[in-house]
Amino acid sequence: MLPVVVVHGGAGHIPKERSDLSTSGVCSAVRSAYAVLQGGGSSMDAVVEAAMLLENNPSFNAGCGSVLNLKGEVEMDALVMDGKTLSSGAVSAVRNIANPVQLARLVMDKTSHACLTAEGASQFARSMGVPEVPQESLITEYSRMRWKKNLAPDANPVECQMGKMGTVGAVAVDTDGNVACATSTGGMLNKMEGRVGDTPCIGSGGYADNMSGAVSTTGHGEAIMKVTLARHILFHMEQGQSAEAASDLGLAHMKSRVGGLGGVVTVDPQGNWAARFSSRQMAWAAAQKGTLHYGLYTGEHFTQIIEDAH
Amino acid sequence: MLPVVVVHGGAGHIPKERSDLSTSGVCSAVRSAYAVLQGGGSSMDAVVEAAMLLENNPSFNAGCGSVLNLKGEVEMDALVMDGKTLSSGAVSAVRNIANPVQLARLVMDKTSHACLTAEGASQFARSMGVPEVPQESLITEYSRMRWKKNLAPDANPVECQMGKMGTVGAVAVDTDGNVACATSTGGMLNKMEGRVGDTPCIGSGGYADNMSGAVSTTGHGEAIMKVTLARHILFHMEQGQSAEAASDLGLAHMKSRVGGLGGVVTVDPQGNWAARFSSRQMAWAAAQKGTLHYGLYTGEHFTQIIEDAH
Repeated sequence: MLPVVVVHGGAGHIPKERSDLSTSGVCSAVRSAYAVLQGGGSSMDAVVEAAMLLENNPSFNAGCGSVLNLKGEVEMDALVMDGKTLSSGAVSAVRNIANPVQLARLVMDKTSHACLTAEGASQFARSMGVPEVPQESLITEYSRMRWKKNLAPDANPVECQMGKMGTVGAVAVDTDGNVACATSTGGMLNKMEGRVGDTPCIGSGGYADNMSGAVSTTGHGEAIMKVTLARHILFHMEQGQSAEAASDLGLAHMKSRVGGLGGVVTVDPQGNWAARFSSRQMAWAAAQKGTLHYGLYTGEHFTQIIEDAH
Repeated sequence: MLPVVVVHGGAGHIPKERSDLSTSGVCSAVRSAYAVLQGGGSSMDAVVEAAMLLENNPSFNAGCGSVLNLKGEVEMDALVMDGKTLSSGAVSAVRNIANPVQLARLVMDKTSHACLTAEGASQFARSMGVPEVPQESLITEYSRMRWKKNLAPDANPVECQMGKMGTVGAVAVDTDGNVACATSTGGMLNKMEGRVGDTPCIGSGGYADNMSGAVSTTGHGEAIMKVTLARHILFHMEQGQSAEAASDLGLAHMKSRVGGLGGVVTVDPQGNWAARFSSRQMAWAAAQKGTLHYGLYTGEHFTQIIEDAH
């Protein structure tokens, strides 16, 4: 059953003309992350690889392609967590870097802290030699068009957010049975400057514990925080629920209690996995035992043999 | 049993010469918060009142009296959560305001977001008419002395942190049975600029849910985040544990799993409450049925009749 990696490209409604790009993006990211695991890499290496590729892909709301805040600027959040030690690293409202998930990992690996925010995160990035990139390199025509549209007085950014690919994320188990998660996002469309959502918040945007499993979440951030969705799902798994049943229980609880929609990817330490969502769509992909799995709509589950790269 | 309010002034080791100030500070804060509840105020009104008074008291690491970051500056975090709606508000790494907990409440009440950070939080404060205060007004001689001491190459800020009053917080249940929590802190001694700890992180620094109860935490922030301590304790209460047993289970889990010490104040919606800690001391106080309860060392529990202010 091991290794395994599962990724998502955000929960929401994906316009037809963008759905192929979303599917190919998550499939490509999961293949690379799986190759990392097959090459002996750790689950942390694999989830960071997947999230980086999705950050670099302009079709997703993370890194290049991030949504813009009210001022038309890019501020990004990211989180990683290591299920063996429960160590985590996060950045919030960080600017001018290509890969927030890498910086989150550096916070975990190189500091005694678990989260750095805003200018403090930028200073740390500089001290680690992370290259600064111009903001323009992170902004796509599509995200600028949507930002302008949502400045209109009758706009509904939350509604509109659900019409766009969201947050990206990944969970994995390596051959040693260690679990990890990573989540990265540009946040919510036309958010206030300095808004921090669920993504960098441990237990909400993600959680990983070798005793139970790992989860990465996507959807309406404020709703995810209200129910600490990732931690909630893992509590169900600690009570004996499967990855799939626990994910569905967590999403159903979020819908009934606070009216929020979203999606998750979940693994347990044995390699059982789930990609579940209450939104209309979620681009997801998984790789296990030489097989690629992927889907976009509820109930969709395609498979493909992964040809050996060697 | 209702109303009830419980406050803490931080877990750690409190030097003897400061212990009277700590005890009188938490007792005074809990009396004012209890008067709010008796006057028909909500649990949210009461926890914000208590946290504000502790922020204004230079004996505690929150608001005036906050510890300093590596650069000798004050950056503060705060969180409030409403157990009826699961709405929350937080600020992280905010500067130049006297009462971060009030700003956290404004984030909850006046925005569609749950957290604002750094300069974005300051902009929001200005837009709400919150007065800016000079940084010097938040810095005490004691905190500056400790900052200098910890710049020495052989200093151990984590160890030293445990020798100082930490984070402040409160939980309450009002006569309608609504629970709420508030937590506020200057963070960790000699932290990096932009470091965000457990306090503003929902589920770690606090959590409130009318279905189970409310918790406010204090201690080593990074350890608290690893186990999402507040949410962890409430999961135990959902499983039928009492406020006291669940608090002890959460603290024991944090100690055994990640070696972290801390303390919590906890209530359930019926008004059962607990003030528990694994650190050497925690200044705490509670008010219920016209009686003030307070203590500082493990096992200490003094009581006093609260004279009617009317």
